[in-house]
Amino acid sequence: MAALRLWRLRRPLAAAFGSAAAAAGAGRPAPPEKLTVRRQAGGVRNIILNNPRKRNALSLSMLQSLREDLLHDVRSKELRVIIISAEGPVFCSGHDLKELSSEDDVKHHSQVFEICAEVMTLIQKLPVPVIAQVNGLATAAGCQLVASCDIAVASEKSQFATPGVNIGLFCSTPAVALGRSLPRKVALEMLFTGEPLSAQEALMHGLVSKVVPEDKLEEETVKISQKICESSKSVLALGKATFYRQMTQDLDTAYKMTTQVMVDNLTLRDGQEGIEAFIQKRKPVWSHSQDEKK
Amino acid sequence: MAALRLWRLRRPLAAAFGSAAAAAGAGRPAPPEKLTVRRQAGGVRNIILNNPRKRNALSLSMLQSLREDLLHDVRSKELRVIIISAEGPVFCSGHDLKELSSEDDVKHHSQVFEICAEVMTLIQKLPVPVIAQVNGLATAAGCQLVASCDIAVASEKSQFATPGVNIGLFCSTPAVALGRSLPRKVALEMLFTGEPLSAQEALMHGLVSKVVPEDKLEEETVKISQKICESSKSVLALGKATFYRQMTQDLDTAYKMTTQVMVDNLTLRDGQEGIEAFIQKRKPVWSHSQDEKK
Amino acid sequence: MAALRLWRLRRPLAAAFGSAAAAAGAGRPAPPEKLTVRRQAGGVRNIILNNPRKRNALSLSMLQSLREDLLHDVRSKELRVIIISAEGPVFCSGHDLKELSSEDDVKHHSQVFEICAEVMTLIQKLPVPVIAQVNGLATAAGCQLVASCDIAVASEKSQFATPGVNIGLFCSTPAVALGRSLPRKVALEMLFTGEPLSAQEALMHGLVSKVVPEDKLEEETVKISQKICESSKSVLALGKATFYRQMTQDLDTAYKMTTQVMVDNLTLRDGQEGIEAFIQKRKPVWSHSQDEKK
Repeated sequence: MAALRLWRLRRPLAAAFGSAAAAAGAGRPAPPEKLTVRRQAGGVRNIILNNPRKRNALSLSMLQSLREDLLHDVRSKELRVIIISAEGPVFCSGHDLKELSSEDDVKHHSQVFEICAEVMTLIQKLPVPVIAQVNGLATAAGCQLVASCDIAVASEKSQFATPGVNIGLFCSTPAVALGRSLPRKVALEMLFTGEPLSAQEALMHGLVSKVVPEDKLEEETVKISQKICESSKSVLALGKATFYRQMTQDLDTAYKMTTQVMVDNLTLRDGQEGIEAFIQKRKPVWSHSQDEKK
Repeated sequence: MAALRLWRLRRPLAAAFGSAAAAAGAGRPAPPEKLTVRRQAGGVRNIILNNPRKRNALSLSMLQSLREDLLHDVRSKELRVIIISAEGPVFCSGHDLKELSSEDDVKHHSQVFEICAEVMTLIQKLPVPVIAQVNGLATAAGCQLVASCDIAVASEKSQFATPGVNIGLFCSTPAVALGRSLPRKVALEMLFTGEPLSAQEALMHGLVSKVVPEDKLEEETVKISQKICESSKSVLALGKATFYRQMTQDLDTAYKMTTQVMVDNLTLRDGQEGIEAFIQKRKPVWSHSQDEKK
Repeated sequence: MAALRLWRLRRPLAAAFGSAAAAAGAGRPAPPEKLTVRRQAGGVRNIILNNPRKRNALSLSMLQSLREDLLHDVRSKELRVIIISAEGPVFCSGHDLKELSSEDDVKHHSQVFEICAEVMTLIQKLPVPVIAQVNGLATAAGCQLVASCDIAVASEKSQFATPGVNIGLFCSTPAVALGRSLPRKVALEMLFTGEPLSAQEALMHGLVSKVVPEDKLEEETVKISQKICESSKSVLALGKATFYRQMTQDLDTAYKMTTQVMVDNLTLRDGQEGIEAFIQKRKPVWSHSQDEKK
C-alpha cells in the first residue's frame, strides 16, 4: 500500500524529469546529471541543489533548473509546500564566477543577473510556502536565496555571508533581500566586510526563523512542512499573496485591502468549511479549491 | 482620603458605563455586563478585556466596547497613558468565530473586520501611549492587538500565534500588524503554521518590548506608565503623531518634517519649561497644554 | 620608516587643522581647541568627539566640526573608512540645551536642527563606510548619531537612550534614525520613557551590529576597518550608494536597478581584476578607480 503510494507519486515525477531532460537537450548536449533534484511526496516538494563539487554555485544552468523545479505544475493540489535544500557541506556559494569573467560579454552577465533576480522574486510569487533548509555555508547569491524564501530553518553550524567585496563585486542584488530581512547595520557589516554571520546571529537578526542541531534539521523542516500540509492550499495561496502585497502599502491601504481579503476568504469553500468544522468540533475537510462556496 | 479619591474617579466612570449601556441597548437587549472594564487613576487608564469565559474574543460588542474605552475623553489632561490587559488565562483569542459563520452574511462579516481594523489603527492615532500588558495567550486578532499597541510588556508564560490557517481563514489583517513588528520570516512561519511564538522569541524578534516573570508583570507596566506620566502630555502627543508620520516617509522628507517639529516643540509652553528647568537644575512643571509659550 | 610614515600623514592633517582654525576664526574668536580630533592612517580616518567636559554635546560648533571632518578630502584614495569615537565616559549627549533655550530665537533653533539632520544624512551619502565605536552613554542626538552610522560597535557598558521627554523636547529627529534601526515597540518605549537600552539589548534589536568587552572595543573596530581597507574603494562606494537607494524601492524596482548595478560593477577595472585574481588564485591588486576597464 505504501509502496503503491510511492509509485503513484513517482510516476509524474519521472515524467517531469523526462521533459526536463528533453528541454535541456534542445540544441545542446544534455548535461551529465541534473543540477537540481526534485522529489515530491505527500504534498511536499523537495528541491535539492545537487552540484556539491562546485559548491552548488548558481550557474545559469543551476538557476534554470531551480526555476523549472519551482514552477513545475505549481497549481496542482498535490503540491502544498516546497523545501529547498542542498547536497554537500556548502548550501550554495552564489554565482559561478567563471560566468562573470571578462571572457563573457555584458549581455551574458546581464542574463545571469536577470534570471537570478527572476528566481528570487519568483519564490514570493508562488502559491505555496517555500522553506530554505540550510545546513552549511550560504554565501552571496546563496545567502540571497535563503533570504528570499518565505521561511528558513538552519542547522547550528550554518553560516551566512556576502563576501562579494573580496572579489571586487559588491553583493548589490543579495543586498536587496538582506536589507529586507536584517537590521540595516547587520546587513551593512556583512556587505562591507564579507564576514559571516553564525546561525544564532542569523536567528537573532531575523535572517532565518529557526535554528536547530544538525541532526534535527530535517525533522524540524518536516514538522513545519507537515503542519503546512494540514491547511487548505487555496487559503494559504490567498494569504501568501496578500502578505507580500500589503507589506508595500501604507497602513490604511493595507487594512482596507486585507479587510476585503478576509471577507473574500470567508466566501471560499474552505473558508466556510473551516469555520463550520470548528463550531461543530470536527476536523475540516479541505477542497483546496479556489471556488467560492455557493 | 483614598476612598474619596476612588469615589471621585468612579463617578465619571459610572457615567460612562451608563452611556455605554444606553448605546448598546439601542434596539437590542443590553448585555449582562460590560465586555471591557475601564478604570482610571493618576493619569493611567486601565482597559481590561473582561470576557474570560469566551477567551476575551473580539466580538463586535467587545470591539465596540474597546473603541469606546479608548476614545472616552481622550483629550483630557487627566488621561496620560492607556494600559490594555485582560481577565483570565487568555489575553485575547481573536474574532468570535460564531460571527463569521455562513449564517451571517457578507455585510455582517465586513462590519466585523472593518471595526477591527478601525480599532487597531485607532491605537496609533490616540494622543497618549498605549501599552499592551499580556499575561497568557494572544492569538489571531488578539495577537494583532498586541502588535498594534505602541508598547507591549508580556509575562514569561505568554504566547503569540496566528492560527487562522487551522480554520481556513488566513490571518491577513493580523499580518498587517505582524509584518510591521516582526522579521518577515518569523511572521510568515507564524502565519503559515499557526504555531506559537514564546514570550522570549517575541522579545527577540520585536513583537513585544519587554518580558518579565508573571509576578512582576503589573509592576513593570506600572513603572513604564508612571515614567510616562512624568512627562508632558502635549509633548508626548506631538512626538507620537510625528513618529508614525515620519515612518512612512523617505529619509530626507522625514528629516525635513521632524526638524520643523523640533522647532515647534520648543515653542510649546512645556518645551521651554523643560529646557529652563534643566538649565536651572529644578523639576519641570508641565502645563500639558498645546499652547505656545508667549 | 614608521616615523616617516606618521610624519607624512600628519602634514596634510596639520594643514587641515590650519584651514579649520582659519574658517572657525572668521569674525569670531577662535575656540581654544578643536571640538573633534581627526587622525588618518592606513586608509582609516578616526574622528574623535573631543569635548568630554560637556559630554561631547552636539553643539552647533561640534556639528560643524564633525561635518568638516567627515567631508574632508573624502574622495581621496587614501581614505577608505571612517571611525567615529569619543573622548571620555559619555559617547555623546545630544544637543547642547543652552543653544535651545528661549534666549535664542526660532531661527537659531532651526539652524541647529538643520545642520544636525544634514550631518546624520551625510553619513549615508559618503562614499566610505562609517563606523560608530561606542564606549559609554549615547543619548538623544548622540543615540541618533550611532543609529545613523553604517556600522556600530559598542562596548558592553554602553547604553542608548532618547530622554528628550524629560526636558519636554520629544526626540523626534532621533526617532527618524531609531525607527529605521529598531523594532517599532522598542523604539517607542525608548522615546516615551527615556529609559536606556543596554548594549546587549541594542545588539539584539539591531541598533548596533556588534558588542564586545570594553578592552576589546578598539581591537574589534580596527579588525572591521582593516577588513574594509582590503577592498576596492570604488566597489564599496558603488555598493553603499546602491544599498541605501534600493532600500526605498519596491522589490521589483530594487532588483531591476541592482541587476544593472551588478553589470556595471563588473565593467569597473576593480570588478574584473577581482574576478580574474580569484580565477587565477592570486591576490587582487585594486586600482580604487571608478574607471571602467577598457
